[in-house]
Amino acid sequence: MKAELVLTANEINPEQLTGRTAVVFDILRATSTIVTALANGCRAVVPVITVEEALSYPRDEDIILGGERNSLLIPGFHHGNSPLEYTPGIVKGKILVLTTTNGTRAIRGAAEGTGQVLIGSLLNAGGVARELLRLGQDAVLVCAGTRGKFSLEDTVAAGMVILELCKLTGGGNKLEITELGQKQKTMAENHILLQSDLAVAAYRLALIYREEPLNILYHSLHGQKLAGMGLSADLAWCARLNHFDLAPVYSEGIITLT
Amino acid sequence: MKAELVLTANEINPEQLTGRTAVVFDILRATSTIVTALANGCRAVVPVITVEEALSYPRDEDIILGGERNSLLIPGFHHGNSPLEYTPGIVKGKILVLTTTNGTRAIRGAAEGTGQVLIGSLLNAGGVARELLRLGQDAVLVCAGTRGKFSLEDTVAAGMVILELCKLTGGGNKLEITELGQKQKTMAENHILLQSDLAVAAYRLALIYREEPLNILYHSLHGQKLAGMGLSADLAWCARLNHFDLAPVYSEGIITLT
Repeated sequence: MKAELVLTANEINPEQLTGRTAVVFDILRATSTIVTALANGCRAVVPVITVEEALSYPRDEDIILGGERNSLLIPGFHHGNSPLEYTPGIVKGKILVLTTTNGTRAIRGAAEGTGQVLIGSLLNAGGVARELLRLGQDAVLVCAGTRGKFSLEDTVAAGMVILELCKLTGGGNKLEITELGQKQKTMAENHILLQSDLAVAAYRLALIYREEPLNILYHSLHGQKLAGMGLSADLAWCARLNHFDLAPVYSEGIITLT
Repeated sequence: MKAELVLTANEINPEQLTGRTAVVFDILRATSTIVTALANGCRAVVPVITVEEALSYPRDEDIILGGERNSLLIPGFHHGNSPLEYTPGIVKGKILVLTTTNGTRAIRGAAEGTGQVLIGSLLNAGGVARELLRLGQDAVLVCAGTRGKFSLEDTVAAGMVILELCKLTGGGNKLEITELGQKQKTMAENHILLQSDLAVAAYRLALIYREEPLNILYHSLHGQKLAGMGLSADLAWCARLNHFDLAPVYSEGIITLT
């Protein structure tokens, strides 16, 4: 399997996604929230781009409006973008209509290709890797980024999925002791071929951070901003590597566990 | 001091460079070649964008034409883009007119700002850091990139300059054991504030690679390409961290040791 990495939502190229499985990462906090809500019994998440689109969604008691602008609750919405708000008591059997600054846009962008779109986070890195291998297509790991820029947390989360792919294909720790000049060969032996320097950097960063995933979030500027807003509990939750073994799928406008 | 990182030559924004010192990295191989030639007694390096511009340069016995296209010698040129070609016997007292695919373009782009422009590589990371501190302006570390994409080797070389800045300002190893949530504070204590997640990633990658800098080059796709062309000796040379203690300056069209 080949694995490629896309730096930000702005750089999504639908042609690059053709016939491949995309995984979208906006781990602070959209994709972590989506994974948590579905794990807690939410029937489906509908990612929408604009606040207006969310507010125009047909209202009934099964619908929850959630999301953020500038990391804050949107007026008229039921909930914000904290995964901790989406407990089983709140989401079980409900449909969550979600709009966030970067994440929902990245999901919709990734869906412009012809391949499958999965939702990735640290919470479900292993589950996503397993689903990628089951689907058997090459992977495009799409980082939402922060305001059009490289985001440490999304890149390292993508790197964690690469690490999980390596583990599942029998590479395991062997990759860490790769000999000089043997990387491509070793990667190929493990059936995971990294297609760009960005994918290599993500993989290397994941190797450093995997023992203390919370550091990823505290070393990122967006994580520091959220911590400064008193949202450290969200960071602690989003850093729970492989807490859930699942791979949400976006298809025809909604995200479900299939 | 604040430190920012620019991902590729395409993303250079002259406004971002105003009043700051830029450092340009295209370590495989343009900036490593420039540093080596100057260290070996070359009087000046003239970076030009096109082959035509190089060929139209007034010829005399003091002029050497060097560079590459597709990593190969250019017809009519004296030398290629290998730092190992630019020995004291070849370059002493001479002027090197150099054109390369990414590096010379990045240097000229960085010079569109109003600040100083330095030439960086692994060979002179410490020398560049010392000069940045002497100049006292904020730093913009400009990676040339490879074909408009993120380049592992340039990014990690920029990270090495950040590490050297930390060492020189008394941070040293303290940064490696930074406590959760204390990074910004610790960086500020060291007088080095990383302004983006990309700068943080470069710094973290430099921490992994500093014991074996040659791995940076063999883990990068461009390094693997050069190795495949039989240019492993170039890689071994370009990986010599802090081999020279100097900081070449680009000013008014030429690069010198001032």
